[in-house]
Amino acid sequence: MAKDKKQPRPKAVTPKGFQDYFGADVTERAAMLGKIAAVYHRYGFDALETSAVETVEALGKFLPDVDRPNEGVFAWQEDSDWLALRYDLTAPLARVAAQYRNDLPSPYRRYAMGPVWRNEKPGPGRFRQFYQCDADTVGAASVAADAEICAMLADCLEEVGIARGDYVIRVNNRKVLNGVLEVAGLSGDDKEAERGIVLRAIDKLDRLGVDGVRALLGAGRKDESGDFTKGAGLSEAQADVVIGFTEAKRDSGAATVARLAELVTGSPIGVAGVAELEEIADLLAAQGYGPDRIIIDPSVVRGLGYYTGPVYEAELTFEVTDEKGRPRNFGSVAGGGRYDDLVKRFTGQEVPATGVSIGVDRLLAALRATRRIESKATGPVIVTVMDRDRMADYQTMVAELRNAGIRAEVYLGNPKNFGNQLKYADKRASPVAIIAGGDEFDQGIVQIKDLILGAQIAQNATLEEWKDRPSQYAVPRDQMVAKVRAILDGQS
Amino acid sequence: MAKDKKQPRPKAVTPKGFQDYFGADVTERAAMLGKIAAVYHRYGFDALETSAVETVEALGKFLPDVDRPNEGVFAWQEDSDWLALRYDLTAPLARVAAQYRNDLPSPYRRYAMGPVWRNEKPGPGRFRQFYQCDADTVGAASVAADAEICAMLADCLEEVGIARGDYVIRVNNRKVLNGVLEVAGLSGDDKEAERGIVLRAIDKLDRLGVDGVRALLGAGRKDESGDFTKGAGLSEAQADVVIGFTEAKRDSGAATVARLAELVTGSPIGVAGVAELEEIADLLAAQGYGPDRIIIDPSVVRGLGYYTGPVYEAELTFEVTDEKGRPRNFGSVAGGGRYDDLVKRFTGQEVPATGVSIGVDRLLAALRATRRIESKATGPVIVTVMDRDRMADYQTMVAELRNAGIRAEVYLGNPKNFGNQLKYADKRASPVAIIAGGDEFDQGIVQIKDLILGAQIAQNATLEEWKDRPSQYAVPRDQMVAKVRAILDGQS
Repeated sequence: MAKDKKQPRPKAVTPKGFQDYFGADVTERAAMLGKIAAVYHRYGFDALETSAVETVEALGKFLPDVDRPNEGVFAWQEDSDWLALRYDLTAPLARVAAQYRNDLPSPYRRYAMGPVWRNEKPGPGRFRQFYQCDADTVGAASVAADAEICAMLADCLEEVGIARGDYVIRVNNRKVLNGVLEVAGLSGDDKEAERGIVLRAIDKLDRLGVDGVRALLGAGRKDESGDFTKGAGLSEAQADVVIGFTEAKRDSGAATVARLAELVTGSPIGVAGVAELEEIADLLAAQGYGPDRIIIDPSVVRGLGYYTGPVYEAELTFEVTDEKGRPRNFGSVAGGGRYDDLVKRFTGQEVPATGVSIGVDRLLAALRATRRIESKATGPVIVTVMDRDRMADYQTMVAELRNAGIRAEVYLGNPKNFGNQLKYADKRASPVAIIAGGDEFDQGIVQIKDLILGAQIAQNATLEEWKDRPSQYAVPRDQMVAKVRAILDGQS
Repeated sequence: MAKDKKQPRPKAVTPKGFQDYFGADVTERAAMLGKIAAVYHRYGFDALETSAVETVEALGKFLPDVDRPNEGVFAWQEDSDWLALRYDLTAPLARVAAQYRNDLPSPYRRYAMGPVWRNEKPGPGRFRQFYQCDADTVGAASVAADAEICAMLADCLEEVGIARGDYVIRVNNRKVLNGVLEVAGLSGDDKEAERGIVLRAIDKLDRLGVDGVRALLGAGRKDESGDFTKGAGLSEAQADVVIGFTEAKRDSGAATVARLAELVTGSPIGVAGVAELEEIADLLAAQGYGPDRIIIDPSVVRGLGYYTGPVYEAELTFEVTDEKGRPRNFGSVAGGGRYDDLVKRFTGQEVPATGVSIGVDRLLAALRATRRIESKATGPVIVTVMDRDRMADYQTMVAELRNAGIRAEVYLGNPKNFGNQLKYADKRASPVAIIAGGDEFDQGIVQIKDLILGAQIAQNATLEEWKDRPSQYAVPRDQMVAKVRAILDGQS
């Protein structure tokens, strides 16, 4: 005890902002990622797994999100170098594409899935480690690469269980936006800050509505908490052009494209962007991906500054109820676009690239919210221990069950209190318990208890029709596996 | 350029001691882990995934390996706390078992797989991030839990492709060793350092042989480099007892147990250990795991200090050739044992636990060394681009192939140089290329090139029988998928 006082016991806690995942939370995510990987693979993408640790030099120290410049990475010093945990899967891809540029095929098509880390202030539902699941094509300038990734994203969503009609993939092009900004008189090098504000304002359209965005395009906006965000300082007329762009979506892709062409008249980059959008729509139509799955939508801009061409976003369109019980659209679960500068940091050469990142946790939450993942988390069959001297016999039983492909275990806690064994079976969500003591061994039988049916009977004990139903069966020892199998089949 | 000079370009390098994994290296490991997870699951173990980051307080700062006390963890400070990357999967389990002790079932059976990090000096083949794959039972005092894990380990090895007879699982018990040490007069609290040296000396039996171990039991040993390792200072007679223990293995488990019983006569803990070994052997026999799979072997002690009872190790017994071309046994791929103190650190309560860790990279290397993983890393079918205005048609072709479950992609690089397209197909190990230009479209056909056969023909161009074999076929457009399927079937 004196020893304990000298050195206080360590606290058994998950670090702030980190989380432990148990049972089905782990296996359901793994199953979903496996399905997505299969689609990526079918599209010709190869797996890449980089380590969690990168040099800060290779990573770039901070997230490329100018709204939150102080948020960064987990980093530590080693001799004269700084190392850090990766904050996404794109930065390591850029490093790999530069490091192995003489050996990799070009275009290099890779997928990657795994955790990333953000050194953010933890908050409710905000975690500092989470999964990403990306596919990128590096070295393909053609918008066919962008179109393909949109098609692949649709296939991924359907593969994991999102029905056609329950999602839409929205495609836009940064060049069109740049054309619109040019028309609005915001194209000079000295207007970069204003363009950034415009970009982020449009990205908040969903949340702030047109009036909020208009405020940000103009003098600025005070939010509910009283905080003031400086605006882009656009005139009314300039703001009209930008807002007109976000509202350019029409009933058909062709009509949207025609409207956009009007808006960018006179801007070469805008005209080029509209042509790319048209080409993407044509390529997707040729592969059978119509507007029931993928649409052109000028309101999608994606917040990140580094996109240079097509941008895309997958949104789930069905309603869920939020924490206050109000219905709302589930919203975005994946997004990406074309970026040409990431590899250039290393080599000086501009390498065209485009890619998508699926928000693994959000997509999994969507599947759970709509019960598209049926919780089939079945616990093991429990072989209880009535007589601890017969452990070898119980182990034989459990081996037979496992050899028949049935998940099973012997109770390995202290067997003295039989009630504890049944409590354990309950906690494990066990479907079946096997019970055999001296009498059963003498008679060459086992007792098999249907725990699901047993629970139903207990719940409905007052009802006549349930009262006399048996939930426990005595069967000959050599019929144990067959009877367990029959009960499990009946339960599912 | 002036800009470039001010800020030198970042170096595109993997940090020292870390590694990138490409393609089949990623997918083969994932497939192997999936098979092991299925066995663990069938045995009633539940998945647990903790985050990569733990508090240093919860983790304990250094590896529990007194041979290398300076090697530690990757850690960094956050406000007043220190955070670190986990160095194994056992320390997080101990934290979880303590943190959720009121909610988890008891016994708690969990498996975990994922990367761990060691802040070691990197060296050839020594990496600072690698995978582990563990299963542990927490809260089961019965050696039935140890026996079960040995059986499960055998099942795992067979499931991933190690044939019965090509592996052996060796079981021993620390209590027997402690009994032997007691008989040798090394049982007092003041002899802890000596016992540690004896333990690590026995663990090096494989590498140093009996003479080397004897030197370490006595005054000490000078290795080839001239470095001197201090010995335990045992007398000749004491060393005889210890060496006798390591050589106690007999032809049958019963004979080994009888020999061990002799060696520990008079030591209560030794006698208890022998009884446990006997019980484990009986339980395994009842489940059908005989000495062709699991044997009692007193030479296995496991280096780590924290084991308190049964210890076990899986060794692959087939020969591989080492880097110098000499045949050698592949050696250990997994190990574990019983430890009772890890949870106590947090709660003060002793919780019995036992578990195994599979060395993922070593096991994967073994499967590759013996070609038990057939490298079926097939690249995608490549639809080449003869006419860039027909991209929509090529995309239609590739969509048809994918819908038939065939891995396929359109070449998305610059199509101008057709030779580059075929070089790309070669680099991707593509089995088939599709070629269609204006003529083919006019005739309603496609050219299908069998690239595997084409390569064989090129290799054997001087042989009469190969010379005239065609490797390219013109087929009607609507028979493209069927013909590709036929070629792929023929190749496999």
